Amino acid sequence: MTLEPAAVRASVTVDEVKAAIDTAMGRRPGTRLLQGARVMNVITYDIEEADVLLAGRLIAGVGAAFAHADAEETVDLGGCWLVPGLIDGHVHLESSLVAPAEYARAVVPRGVTGVACDPHEIANVAGTAGIGWLIDASRGLPLDVWVTIPSCVPSSPLETSGAAIGLTEIADLMDHPRVVGVAELMDIAGVTAGNEEVLAKALVSEMFRKVTEGHVPAVGGRHLAAYLAAGAASDHESTTLAEGLEKLRAGCFLMVREGSVSRNLDALVPLLRSSFADRIGFVTDDRFPNDLLDEGGVDFLVRRAIRLGIPPAVAVRCGSWNTARHFRLPRRGAIAPGYVADLAVVDDIERFHVRAVYKGGRAAAADGRVQWAMPPLPQAGAAMRGSVKLPDISVSSFRLGAAGTRVRCIRLVPGQLLTEQIWIQPRCVDGTAVADPERDLAKLVCVERHGTRGGTGVGLVTGFGLRGGALASTVAHDHHNLMAVGMQDGDLLVACRRLEALGGGFVAVSGGRILAELPLPLGGLMTDQPLVRVRHDLDALDEAARGLGVSVPSPFMILSFLGLAVIPELRLTDFGLVDVVAARVVPLGAEP
Amino acid sequence: MTLEPAAVRASVTVDEVKAAIDTAMGRRPGTRLLQGARVMNVITYDIEEADVLLAGRLIAGVGAAFAHADAEETVDLGGCWLVPGLIDGHVHLESSLVAPAEYARAVVPRGVTGVACDPHEIANVAGTAGIGWLIDASRGLPLDVWVTIPSCVPSSPLETSGAAIGLTEIADLMDHPRVVGVAELMDIAGVTAGNEEVLAKALVSEMFRKVTEGHVPAVGGRHLAAYLAAGAASDHESTTLAEGLEKLRAGCFLMVREGSVSRNLDALVPLLRSSFADRIGFVTDDRFPNDLLDEGGVDFLVRRAIRLGIPPAVAVRCGSWNTARHFRLPRRGAIAPGYVADLAVVDDIERFHVRAVYKGGRAAAADGRVQWAMPPLPQAGAAMRGSVKLPDISVSSFRLGAAGTRVRCIRLVPGQLLTEQIWIQPRCVDGTAVADPERDLAKLVCVERHGTRGGTGVGLVTGFGLRGGALASTVAHDHHNLMAVGMQDGDLLVACRRLEALGGGFVAVSGGRILAELPLPLGGLMTDQPLVRVRHDLDALDEAARGLGVSVPSPFMILSFLGLAVIPELRLTDFGLVDVVAARVVPLGAEP
Repeated sequence: MTLEPAAVRASVTVDEVKAAIDTAMGRRPGTRLLQGARVMNVITYDIEEADVLLAGRLIAGVGAAFAHADAEETVDLGGCWLVPGLIDGHVHLESSLVAPAEYARAVVPRGVTGVACDPHEIANVAGTAGIGWLIDASRGLPLDVWVTIPSCVPSSPLETSGAAIGLTEIADLMDHPRVVGVAELMDIAGVTAGNEEVLAKALVSEMFRKVTEGHVPAVGGRHLAAYLAAGAASDHESTTLAEGLEKLRAGCFLMVREGSVSRNLDALVPLLRSSFADRIGFVTDDRFPNDLLDEGGVDFLVRRAIRLGIPPAVAVRCGSWNTARHFRLPRRGAIAPGYVADLAVVDDIERFHVRAVYKGGRAAAADGRVQWAMPPLPQAGAAMRGSVKLPDISVSSFRLGAAGTRVRCIRLVPGQLLTEQIWIQPRCVDGTAVADPERDLAKLVCVERHGTRGGTGVGLVTGFGLRGGALASTVAHDHHNLMAVGMQDGDLLVACRRLEALGGGFVAVSGGRILAELPLPLGGLMTDQPLVRVRHDLDALDEAARGLGVSVPSPFMILSFLGLAVIPELRLTDFGLVDVVAARVVPLGAEP
Repeated sequence: MTLEPAAVRASVTVDEVKAAIDTAMGRRPGTRLLQGARVMNVITYDIEEADVLLAGRLIAGVGAAFAHADAEETVDLGGCWLVPGLIDGHVHLESSLVAPAEYARAVVPRGVTGVACDPHEIANVAGTAGIGWLIDASRGLPLDVWVTIPSCVPSSPLETSGAAIGLTEIADLMDHPRVVGVAELMDIAGVTAGNEEVLAKALVSEMFRKVTEGHVPAVGGRHLAAYLAAGAASDHESTTLAEGLEKLRAGCFLMVREGSVSRNLDALVPLLRSSFADRIGFVTDDRFPNDLLDEGGVDFLVRRAIRLGIPPAVAVRCGSWNTARHFRLPRRGAIAPGYVADLAVVDDIERFHVRAVYKGGRAAAADGRVQWAMPPLPQAGAAMRGSVKLPDISVSSFRLGAAGTRVRCIRLVPGQLLTEQIWIQPRCVDGTAVADPERDLAKLVCVERHGTRGGTGVGLVTGFGLRGGALASTVAHDHHNLMAVGMQDGDLLVACRRLEALGGGFVAVSGGRILAELPLPLGGLMTDQPLVRVRHDLDALDEAARGLGVSVPSPFMILSFLGLAVIPELRLTDFGLVDVVAARVVPLGAEP
């Protein structure tokens, strides 16, 4: 008889369990006794003034039986609340622009000890190598990083991504111990059309007793039923109460989201007062660096829910236990015997202010700072570094034909990710349409940067307020080609070349000179630098953009969504202009 | 790309999902439209008057969007309630004394469409071959039979069972698609002592993302914490409100039981009114033939909970959705799109009277009768048939020494499984202690019947009221050796030989003549005959026993527990008398 197999893929080893049992039985001292806390039980929603005894990574016991128990170290929590470490049910870590360790540094001191991430962005750039890098780069952190495998890479046939994730790749990755399922099934049209490859992707998670995540915004009735038949177990796209309730009734685990862009908690908060709040989890989806620093991660939802009048135990439960159950994570999400000792010490429950955090029984953070020896960032392979491989471009690559005709133009819609298609009469020089600062008409280009097809899409956009120069980004959902907006073709070219040299990032250029930049050498999406440095660079970039006349907030974020060919109305990919509603590439001018 | 893998181990195939999607989208007719039902949503606890459209095995849609949808067949449910098929969270099918198909025939018309069974009894007789037989014998029924793998075979080192289930056997079986976990971890002492093999058994389920079931009666405080650290996720042994609440708070999924012997619902019913009733499931554990026929299976708990004032949606939820979630059964336990169409039509919700049942979209039962072509019972191999292999016994095998000394005697405690040890002065003939009808002192024997060690234990018992003859049984928890109680050694021998000839069962003997019998040739535990036939034979056996003077109800059931060396105080196994508290074999007389 070998004991090894049980230890290999379980969340704990036999030795760890044995230590917890010996400690609970009083045969050996605990590693730490947390005294005098108000222990939040997120299963039964009650608060008990109790001691909590730890044995290594695990909780050995809670309550009166463990008062004054023998332990190597005793910590007086002086009436603070002790709550389970929070778990974010759906996050794209890449949106933080930093590596996982740096993400952890931002959220762990706020009480977040686990995230279920969807490495959709890095998978679009570097495929399974990118997912593998993320798994490596999130090892040994004070944050559990569970992974769902992207189901829709590429997102659209009207763009060139750096890799494709097929059924075989998903199945190969599904057995990894940290992989908890198949990521959001965004191809709603493919599902409801009954596309067999899409359906097989949705079912493959079940072979491994894992889950498939849903993504089904503003869909109800017959279409929702058809979509859910594929087996998606959750949704995080609800924006109205009626939508959330319909999905709950149809069996969805309802993930309530507060991202940097999409903020849905206020609309859905009445559901947290229902008798079925056990079916609700909290997620952040996409959070940008400034919001992570200012508001936090999934702790933001707990805090806001409490402020909106939700009982703290319900709010914390949605940020811990419920999500752990959804993903079938054993020994997670509650303060109970045998559970992993992921704990947050809260000194003000109304404001949900976290004073200290324990991860797996070890002190992980205190007073807003991580206390953890972070492992070095693993070596990034060729797929991650040097991922910006531009074709042979010149200013002539950005030429637009169509002299004298009306042409399509993308119009930004203030405060929304939607765009409109408008028809305009462009200014023409030497027989080609050019940018026109007087009318806020800028050139928009999308250069394929994965070194494969080498195409360049060119169009016009209005709404940035740009008066000169160029802005460029290699963050461009979901294909992450190089997007640039500018008034001078020469500046566009300089911006592209600069991002190639940096291995990706954001840049602002004017008169051929670099005004500001943020290098993102990890897949063109993330940096190995600290989050505060990223914020500093982003501030400099925004200031440079404002200096060029830009009037919209977060112009680089807006730029990064102008290539997303699944949100109406008109977008630009490396294939050219895409009419999203018609789901096809369209010419600049009217069709013959 | 191959689509096969996804279909092999998932609960549905791509084709089934595609059919549901096409039906939901209106591209093909449903197989059945259930009209005008009051559809119970066990997730949100509401009742919707709605139509339910089926597509083969699956539910294509529920609600207004599917009213008057096109279907091959339309059924008017005329205002009946439609509820999800019930799931019993913990049952030993062998206690019904019939094969799984016959069990299904009893419970399916009552709305039960799934059970999580623990084949602990047949495993003690026939090991993995017995488990394999049960899996084979429960294929193609209108009842899903999910299996947990017994963790404690043998139950005690003080008995001889027919097989042992070690870590290797558990791990080998764990990957089977219908296996949902490791069965009740009964070795509480082994767990709290930190026995590594026991701990490894508890952890192995997690390697397969399945669950380990608990069994921890009347344990709290430090001992409960130590026990739960091993990873048991449930408990079904709570008998008091305080015990149930402590286990819920400690993270247990609380299984509330109404067996034939242990009846705990009334004591625990206040927990069903709590805000955490999502953590409670209903189970039957052991139900004997008469109770199955008169009261039903897990439907009995739903009915009784409603009678005790629990809202029907909560009661049904505890008998369906909650248990499906505990066992991580996808597409089960609710009426929702993409779910397996396991449905019960209830015409009186207060009495929970089931009129018709659909299993996987097919009509399975109506008006109390199964409408399903049951598959033939699979061939039972050598381990199952001819499992009663007695050693070479004679009346001298039953001799008791100890003339003239005080000896131990087992005293039955009326209405309980507990026994007491008393000391008596036996009647002696020819230098050996003999039975004494005048003082209600019967001989009790336990003959090893698995053909291995060949031992025979002999002792005395009081409390049956027997005045002559003998009763014998090959059902004897947990080792299932041959237990017999009698006033004449000759009748004891006849009873033993008869059970060997029958391949097991129950028998009543007097004056060397068989008065009544129930053959149980399947492992000595079950018959291939119908349940009504079993009841008839049991009635005849009970009548014969009463004719022999027996004054206790269900004497064969009592006999079957007298060998269970884990319930205090004094028991008899093939090793001899066992002092359960001291956990050792003891001599008949006082120790030297």
